[in-house]
Amino acid sequence: MNLEYDAMAKRVAALERLLQVSIQLTTETKLSNLLKTVVHEGRVLLEADGATLYLVEPDGLRFHVSENETLKKQLGAKEWRRLSAPYVVPMTSESMVGHVALTGECMNVENVYSMPEDNAHLVAGAQAFDKLTGYTTQSLLTVPLQVAEGAVVGVLQLINSQNGSFSAADEPVAQGLAATASAAITKAMLTEQIKDARQETIIRLARAAEFRDKETSAHIQRMSHISAILARRMGLSEKFCEDLLVAAPMHDVGKIGIPDSILQKPGKLNAEEWEIMKTHAAIGGRILAGSNDPILQLSAEVALAHHEKWDGSGYPEGLSGENIPLSGRIVALADVFDALCSKRCYKEAMTLDEVTSIIQAGRGAHFQPEVVDRLFEDLDEILELYELFKNDDPDEFKILTDLAMRRATHAR
Amino acid sequence: MNLEYDAMAKRVAALERLLQVSIQLTTETKLSNLLKTVVHEGRVLLEADGATLYLVEPDGLRFHVSENETLKKQLGAKEWRRLSAPYVVPMTSESMVGHVALTGECMNVENVYSMPEDNAHLVAGAQAFDKLTGYTTQSLLTVPLQVAEGAVVGVLQLINSQNGSFSAADEPVAQGLAATASAAITKAMLTEQIKDARQETIIRLARAAEFRDKETSAHIQRMSHISAILARRMGLSEKFCEDLLVAAPMHDVGKIGIPDSILQKPGKLNAEEWEIMKTHAAIGGRILAGSNDPILQLSAEVALAHHEKWDGSGYPEGLSGENIPLSGRIVALADVFDALCSKRCYKEAMTLDEVTSIIQAGRGAHFQPEVVDRLFEDLDEILELYELFKNDDPDEFKILTDLAMRRATHAR
Repeated sequence: MNLEYDAMAKRVAALERLLQVSIQLTTETKLSNLLKTVVHEGRVLLEADGATLYLVEPDGLRFHVSENETLKKQLGAKEWRRLSAPYVVPMTSESMVGHVALTGECMNVENVYSMPEDNAHLVAGAQAFDKLTGYTTQSLLTVPLQVAEGAVVGVLQLINSQNGSFSAADEPVAQGLAATASAAITKAMLTEQIKDARQETIIRLARAAEFRDKETSAHIQRMSHISAILARRMGLSEKFCEDLLVAAPMHDVGKIGIPDSILQKPGKLNAEEWEIMKTHAAIGGRILAGSNDPILQLSAEVALAHHEKWDGSGYPEGLSGENIPLSGRIVALADVFDALCSKRCYKEAMTLDEVTSIIQAGRGAHFQPEVVDRLFEDLDEILELYELFKNDDPDEFKILTDLAMRRATHAR
Repeated sequence: MNLEYDAMAKRVAALERLLQVSIQLTTETKLSNLLKTVVHEGRVLLEADGATLYLVEPDGLRFHVSENETLKKQLGAKEWRRLSAPYVVPMTSESMVGHVALTGECMNVENVYSMPEDNAHLVAGAQAFDKLTGYTTQSLLTVPLQVAEGAVVGVLQLINSQNGSFSAADEPVAQGLAATASAAITKAMLTEQIKDARQETIIRLARAAEFRDKETSAHIQRMSHISAILARRMGLSEKFCEDLLVAAPMHDVGKIGIPDSILQKPGKLNAEEWEIMKTHAAIGGRILAGSNDPILQLSAEVALAHHEKWDGSGYPEGLSGENIPLSGRIVALADVFDALCSKRCYKEAMTLDEVTSIIQAGRGAHFQPEVVDRLFEDLDEILELYELFKNDDPDEFKILTDLAMRRATHAR
């Protein structure tokens, strides 16, 4: 009776601990921490000498995290880390973890050296590991990390029960831990997929716009990077700066809706053509409007506001001062600065002096004074973008000559 | 000793059951089943008379699922269903569930009728419920459904412990169940967000294309619906038919890259212009290529293949027969059928007889014979789309006259 009572008390303690771990893991947002906790708690909860976690990846089951108390003591932490470096097991029934991943069923083996002949292949991996390390694997409890009927994202393997072998009662504990891990891994994977899906819209629209307006691809890259640099210098959050880098390339997407005769006219636009050209801001806003995605919301804001001017003389709405969204004020300067620096089919590139005097003349009129000051605070960081994103045309930028001269002066 | 042993045995049983429920819930993909299970198992596990689950929604905490054994017996299932219809509690500290959602902390109340004065507002809701139903609420255990530090997606409330009040040991059990529920709810929400994010790309590209080619919006809707109908009649999976409905609108997105002078030319294109026009299939393929999203992959396939012909005389690759992707063979017919039926700036609409004879002439040459046969198998379902997606122009479709005549004939 007393023994039974002790066993019961131990069981309660294990289940209580599993409960605490599950609650804690639900709010863990970093995948690597989560995997480490699952392996460590699995080993402790199931009184195992070792534990290993594999995740399903395109090329097979990748070994991610492992603990082995005996080997860590025998070999030292450094040598154990070397031996437990990630490797990939093929997703086939030739190995135990592959078999568990494919069938979605738990496998409890009492002794890997007394397996029936026809299942010998399932323990070949453990035996090879023993040969390599001098370890003696005996019992193994292997459970799938399952997220839905037939959908396995990984496998948790517990090695050498300190009680000789794993009991039937150990199985649900390991499965419970695996269930918590599966849910958290799925969350991390879905979050990654959302990020990818959101970038798709920007990627496809940019590709579509390039077919209309081929010369602007490098311009878009430079002005987006300048926008992000300016935002950073204005003390805005890193998240905003990163979002602006992705959103700014959409500022001229509305040009998709402008006729070729205007968009590609080599000479100056007449008054009527100019009015049509100006509609690109509103068209861009309409193409991008109404999304739930924060980056698309920001890009809609930028597309609509990047031709507004600080003194209210811009378009499409004639907003002034801080009524213009901050993103629009920043992108406006980055866009004009790069256009002035670049050679276009209708104009030559300017020298840095010429660009500077035009931008300074627009300080407080076209541009917010603070944004202009942030631009000139450190020109070298900006000019280096022109080395990074340039074409083959030696006349493309005159400012690169200025950068070279500035460097020569600094070097002296 | 015996009593303690019994209590211990009961605790083990509860924890074992919680473990089983957690494992089971991890693979439950339907949110409504999941919520029901959480409420029911919560009530059973914690030996409560009632349980209620609230989810955080934009307008507050929405009451989703509720069980109450006493009231269900007293009032009957029907009246209880009426009383437990969904309602919304504001997300403020004025109510207990609001308070728990805002603080993210568990709340265990022994008796709602002996609360200290300054917390009286927290139990006003329970007291109002009692007045309405004749029920007597006593103990309440309220736990948050938390997905990350500070991120609460719902609240689980357990009502009237059968043991007088809820113990401290009950709290982690309720929290454990709430943790499993949170993970599953998050999974469902993220899956929804991925779907939204993936649709964004199609929505934005379609809007951009409309600015280039304004007359085709209704054409796109009709030909996409015709494509989905044909796919269904060909016995393809419902998933494929639904994906094709979303992907088909992208078939002409490559026209964004065709110059206005060709795209909007009122007369016939000359040979050189025609070669340029034909590049729209490859351009569309390139705009959409290389995505991980199955719908974008399908739309890239459709954009590239919708001008291939069954006999190999199409473009851009001159594929023939079953080398043309099935999606392309279906969309090819839907696209031509709708174009023939419609009035365009360069041509009148045709009668149904004229359209039929042109399509039948292309059977086995331009079009796969089986797809043509599926189209003519039931024309009425197709013609009804022309009533649904039409403009104000009375000359837009001659085939609507045919539909009216067919109906008059059937009516007789």
